[in-house]
Amino acid sequence: MSGSRARLEKQIDFILEIDRLKTIYRRTYLTDASRFENSAEHSWHIAVMAMVLAEHANQPDIDLLSVIKMLLIHDLVEIDAGDTFAYDTSAKTDKAEREQAAADRIFNLLPADQAAGFRALWDEFEARQTPEACFAAALDRLQPLIHNLYTRGKSWKEHGVQKDQVLSLNRHSADGASALWDFAVEWIEKAVSRGDLPE
Amino acid sequence: MSGSRARLEKQIDFILEIDRLKTIYRRTYLTDASRFENSAEHSWHIAVMAMVLAEHANQPDIDLLSVIKMLLIHDLVEIDAGDTFAYDTSAKTDKAEREQAAADRIFNLLPADQAAGFRALWDEFEARQTPEACFAAALDRLQPLIHNLYTRGKSWKEHGVQKDQVLSLNRHSADGASALWDFAVEWIEKAVSRGDLPE
Repeated sequence: MSGSRARLEKQIDFILEIDRLKTIYRRTYLTDASRFENSAEHSWHIAVMAMVLAEHANQPDIDLLSVIKMLLIHDLVEIDAGDTFAYDTSAKTDKAEREQAAADRIFNLLPADQAAGFRALWDEFEARQTPEACFAAALDRLQPLIHNLYTRGKSWKEHGVQKDQVLSLNRHSADGASALWDFAVEWIEKAVSRGDLPE
Repeated sequence: MSGSRARLEKQIDFILEIDRLKTIYRRTYLTDASRFENSAEHSWHIAVMAMVLAEHANQPDIDLLSVIKMLLIHDLVEIDAGDTFAYDTSAKTDKAEREQAAADRIFNLLPADQAAGFRALWDEFEARQTPEACFAAALDRLQPLIHNLYTRGKSWKEHGVQKDQVLSLNRHSADGASALWDFAVEWIEKAVSRGDLPE
């Protein structure tokens, strides 16, 4: 078997493996409230959001390709580690450990050079130190917020989430896109005033 | 209301509307054969495939951002037009007309400059004249092929699809990525030899 053939087979193995992200369900509902959203379609949605909302990033000349790549792969670790509900503080205690182990396994299905590149992107997203990672993280937080607002706080209500939790968990969105966060704060106030989110 | 506020509200309306792509189901099964795949998660999958397989594009210096953007939005027209099964020749007769009308409505939810940009990307994908569009189209065809091979031809068998149809429908993949098409032809032969695809 030639090197390039073995390389392609590794790439196909990775492509087959990541199909499983379509079976990882989040706590966020689709906007029609018909079912929970899975992490693959969530990743698609926020990647399109990056295309639409890039002009609102704090950094004017943001590297959009890098943002989209991070968003496309940021949840792959959930194939092994599962989706950790953002407001579940107890499940979060070992989240980092579970996700590091998942990243070690999943990205290493790829040829070594690509495994390193994908891992670097995932590490960048998790660290939230670059303008691209901050903007990507803002979109990852704003999307479920929009879905909650649109479904009259359905997921928030089911999990007893309150306004101060929403504010503290999502506030870092301002590091990537302060204009979007200002708008989100208005939505949150509106949700409170409509009775969709307890004060 | 300021111009920028109205602009952001249009962008959010578009982001909410495209959530519906998660409810458009294709004829392709997930690799675990548990259910049909929807068009949003399919779009995510082929966008990641573009990241992994870009080196196999016929054009060596392909614009990956452009490829990924096309893949992320190429199926949005299905929100109105539905998914047309690739091997259903009768449904294909008015497919172009239905999809043009859908593109007119859906992309125009965006601010005018973005509507034009998204429409241009979609037109480019449909026309398959640029190296980026040819490569994107190849990935869009190869992904269901991989799923069919992995599920022992489950969707092919249910729809009575034969080898010559698979070859003629997908052959244009070679225009974007001839190395991937060569590999796909081997897979197709293997599916025939295993009895998963009638000669």
